[in-house]
Amino acid sequence: MNQWTGPATKTFATSSSLAETSYVPTEQTQKNIPTKKILVDPYRQGLIIEGGVGYRQTVVIRSHEVGPDKTATLESLLNLLQEAALNHVWMSGLLGDGFGATHGMIRNNLIWVVTKMQVQVDSYPIWGEIVEVDTWVGASGKNGMRHWDSTWVMMNRQTRRLSKMPEEVRDEITPWFIDKQAISSDVCTKIVKLDDKAKYINSDLKPKRSDLDMNHHVNNVKYVRWMLETIPDSFLDSHQLSSITLEYRRECGSTDLVQSFCEPDNEEHELHKHNDINILNGFSLTSKILDGHALFDASVKFPLRYTHLLQIEGEPKNEEIVRGQTTWKRKISKKPTIAH
Amino acid sequence: MNQWTGPATKTFATSSSLAETSYVPTEQTQKNIPTKKILVDPYRQGLIIEGGVGYRQTVVIRSHEVGPDKTATLESLLNLLQEAALNHVWMSGLLGDGFGATHGMIRNNLIWVVTKMQVQVDSYPIWGEIVEVDTWVGASGKNGMRHWDSTWVMMNRQTRRLSKMPEEVRDEITPWFIDKQAISSDVCTKIVKLDDKAKYINSDLKPKRSDLDMNHHVNNVKYVRWMLETIPDSFLDSHQLSSITLEYRRECGSTDLVQSFCEPDNEEHELHKHNDINILNGFSLTSKILDGHALFDASVKFPLRYTHLLQIEGEPKNEEIVRGQTTWKRKISKKPTIAH
Repeated sequence: MNQWTGPATKTFATSSSLAETSYVPTEQTQKNIPTKKILVDPYRQGLIIEGGVGYRQTVVIRSHEVGPDKTATLESLLNLLQEAALNHVWMSGLLGDGFGATHGMIRNNLIWVVTKMQVQVDSYPIWGEIVEVDTWVGASGKNGMRHWDSTWVMMNRQTRRLSKMPEEVRDEITPWFIDKQAISSDVCTKIVKLDDKAKYINSDLKPKRSDLDMNHHVNNVKYVRWMLETIPDSFLDSHQLSSITLEYRRECGSTDLVQSFCEPDNEEHELHKHNDINILNGFSLTSKILDGHALFDASVKFPLRYTHLLQIEGEPKNEEIVRGQTTWKRKISKKPTIAH
Repeated sequence: MNQWTGPATKTFATSSSLAETSYVPTEQTQKNIPTKKILVDPYRQGLIIEGGVGYRQTVVIRSHEVGPDKTATLESLLNLLQEAALNHVWMSGLLGDGFGATHGMIRNNLIWVVTKMQVQVDSYPIWGEIVEVDTWVGASGKNGMRHWDSTWVMMNRQTRRLSKMPEEVRDEITPWFIDKQAISSDVCTKIVKLDDKAKYINSDLKPKRSDLDMNHHVNNVKYVRWMLETIPDSFLDSHQLSSITLEYRRECGSTDLVQSFCEPDNEEHELHKHNDINILNGFSLTSKILDGHALFDASVKFPLRYTHLLQIEGEPKNEEIVRGQTTWKRKISKKPTIAH
């Protein structure tokens, strides 16, 4: 069944001699890429599911993937989703030596770019928790592909222009398509474009070396970090992100200067209710209590939301990188607060 | 053999319903921690080696763990080393619910802090490469513990003062000690303390939320990033880190402002030789050619080195966080340069 011959392993952390030369090659390429579909990958703990076209990977949340509250950060989850998507291509036998690009894409000098992503987190896994990451692909119009609820299209590596999907690439990937959605997308609201009248603004953000991915672009996770860091700390301390939607407009290079705009959708409403909530924390939260508090209940129905924009500071005009929208839940403290 | 009952797994990326409540608990604790020594952990791909006291974990380098050159970043490797060390404690059955703290440590309100770390990287694994991470512990004086070549001591969680190792903790961990070193430590040179006369200085560095670990401190990896970001980009583009030594002096909190000093040990020497090297790149690098170039050869014997210091900007005086020393190899380009 498993047509993949395991590559040789490399041990590190046991080096006991000095390096023999002071010169190292500047780029490395991945070896042992499967040339046929494989069903089980023991090293990545991955397997093909969904009648042969979906992919599931089992991962354990690592210590550095969690934040101060011991739950996985959104960034870690996004990284794991990306990893599973790439490993899905690996398992398919379609992977050329690129960032998830198929053989046909490489022949046509094409790379994947994400245009839209929507992630919803019902609960964050904790340190040491065992998690199954499922991923699958579906058609998105004529020229795109969906991974969970992200949409991918193709771009020419040289011209940086979006490209139609070549016939040979369509032939490669369509056998893998499933008609399934991770999030019931009744939320098709267009994200409004913010400008410099936004309530919170961080300017002169500069990508660092460690923010660049294999394609030498600022990685998606960095975008999310810039967005979230523009929200006031006091809000972040007391809330947890429950969903994020991203609409990508253009790439950001290593020398661009970036501005992050952020606008609360219903912040006044939120501040107004803060006192009621503190009192509630003194009790156990049963649905009975919830029902008894109309204001509280209202916030369940209308979760807190922020609108975001990252743009490149430029002359004569600024250029949009990505629009975003985030929704949030309020955290409850484990230590009951005494109401007074 | 395996006395560990696998915890329930959690699937994410398949959420299809909205969250039922808008309130989430503020802190989570790890469940299913083994209470007895276990020998095999199928989920983390870990096993006990070295006659029952060492630990080996097999990991695959993930896409987000590599940099633009497709090799794992130093930060990723440090994270993997930390993860293996913590999982080692997990396997031992000694883990309380803390950041690697044993039951005895928790009873005494103690946490681990690292005082010295030395990491040497002979070659960086690439994206998709399968790597075995070995870890073990040894005695370090009367009150410390070594993990590879890092030294750990105990600190009181409340007073933040270093503590002697209580008898009950010594009894817990000494059965796990091995007398083995990862790096032949003939390099016991003390790292000199830099001051504001250092050649490269980054000031007003401010920890971000995402830089804090489970103990609510700035994590070690962030320190390394601050150190490396102070080195000029032109150097980082053409060189790869081959070793790093860190001597920790005090903790850095989330509200501290940090300065990063960096001083090259032999930069003039380096710039002087740059032209010779470009010519050499036009040939394949055989030891014969190396032998024929005295200058080139000299740089092999005396690798490039930087000294680092991170300190908290404070009144009346600044306080040291960590001293560092890094050594570097020059990268060779895959594309031969024409000598002219």
